[in-house]
Amino acid sequence: MLNRDVVKAVIFDTFGTVVDWRSSVAAEGKSAAHSNGLTEFDGDAFADAWRAGYAPKMKEVRDGKRPWTTNDVLHRERLDDIVADFNLEELDEIARSELNRAWHRLTPWPDSVPGLHRLKKRYIISTFSNGSFGLLVNMAKYSGLPWDGILNSDMFRAFKPAKECYLGAIELLGGDPTSVMLCAAHNDDLSHARKHGMQTAFVNRPLEHGPQQTTDLKAEQDWEIIASSIEEIADRMGC
Amino acid sequence: MLNRDVVKAVIFDTFGTVVDWRSSVAAEGKSAAHSNGLTEFDGDAFADAWRAGYAPKMKEVRDGKRPWTTNDVLHRERLDDIVADFNLEELDEIARSELNRAWHRLTPWPDSVPGLHRLKKRYIISTFSNGSFGLLVNMAKYSGLPWDGILNSDMFRAFKPAKECYLGAIELLGGDPTSVMLCAAHNDDLSHARKHGMQTAFVNRPLEHGPQQTTDLKAEQDWEIIASSIEEIADRMGC
Repeated sequence: MLNRDVVKAVIFDTFGTVVDWRSSVAAEGKSAAHSNGLTEFDGDAFADAWRAGYAPKMKEVRDGKRPWTTNDVLHRERLDDIVADFNLEELDEIARSELNRAWHRLTPWPDSVPGLHRLKKRYIISTFSNGSFGLLVNMAKYSGLPWDGILNSDMFRAFKPAKECYLGAIELLGGDPTSVMLCAAHNDDLSHARKHGMQTAFVNRPLEHGPQQTTDLKAEQDWEIIASSIEEIADRMGC
Repeated sequence: MLNRDVVKAVIFDTFGTVVDWRSSVAAEGKSAAHSNGLTEFDGDAFADAWRAGYAPKMKEVRDGKRPWTTNDVLHRERLDDIVADFNLEELDEIARSELNRAWHRLTPWPDSVPGLHRLKKRYIISTFSNGSFGLLVNMAKYSGLPWDGILNSDMFRAFKPAKECYLGAIELLGGDPTSVMLCAAHNDDLSHARKHGMQTAFVNRPLEHGPQQTTDLKAEQDWEIIASSIEEIADRMGC
């Protein structure tokens, strides 16, 4: 049950929850393809293919099969993996490096910036993301996300859902898990947050993966807040 | 020599460099003393005595004589050490805990907020402080410090000048030391930053320790920037 009075910080999963990575990466992919003379290019398929490499590569790190690696490097590896499938092999080092930065320039969902501004007045608001520190700061500057702080995997040298992330965030925020609320569009992330004692807010993002999305279409547990926008979370949090 | 073009992030020592801890803590001490019926109270002496415990306690952590301890705890221990000297023994747990939060409510020097807003337009700006994460976020919210990120000792589980802090900040900011500039009012902090490859900016704060200050009255090396305000640093950085 929501205990609003003890919440001091609301922390946010970022990719998918706060920003629409798919449309943003599709548009940047398309633009790179056009600059390279490709007139036919499926930006959505490109974004999906790029994103599909993310979880397996993070899992290699979590499973100890490779040392700690920041997600900018994982994004770049995956780009190199898929360029041939999209006829982008001719992109040179500079173009690939620039395209990799598409992940630093993701566009927020329309309710994100106004919702965050409202929540910021009463609570500490922060990222809680597997993105790199630089990526998250650049994204905030690019999109006007008014974070009070950046909590991310680089600091914990671990990717969610490793417990080091949840416990690390709780420690940095003063040590009381119930004073921290995780907002995420992903039931799995919330289930780990709850296991470690945080309060939880589900925000429904049924288009994160496009119109054919099959996962996270609804709340799968009785999260403290279940909402369809960050503005609605601000309503529920009395902001 | 200043190489402005490669700088991506300007990070700031906070106590003394960005905020005037002495006047702020003196005022809060005085107010607590008055609420407790003490009409005569030397706020400046109280602030100095409180601060005097900070470096020795951090040194115990750095020397491995005690485990990692966040600075909110060190502040509170020191408060308990000095209450008797200032006739504040009667402050109860709630009052001491509240007074300890004085360090979360420090007032910026007059040039800090405008200077940071200018620098933020072109660079990532962040704390680089021995303060706790919560302390730095609360201070930013209280004083309107527009940080893009909070880099602090809690993340590195080490206090400056431990090398883990400098190397950790460089890593989080992308790995290139020359792309990071430390701004500090303390020559020692800057000397460590330079040793680890950062660029350096000295801001003169001759009143940090009050009118009798004897240390850090001038730049002791040829720092890339030597200035008397953060606004002047923004000038030099082309903002």
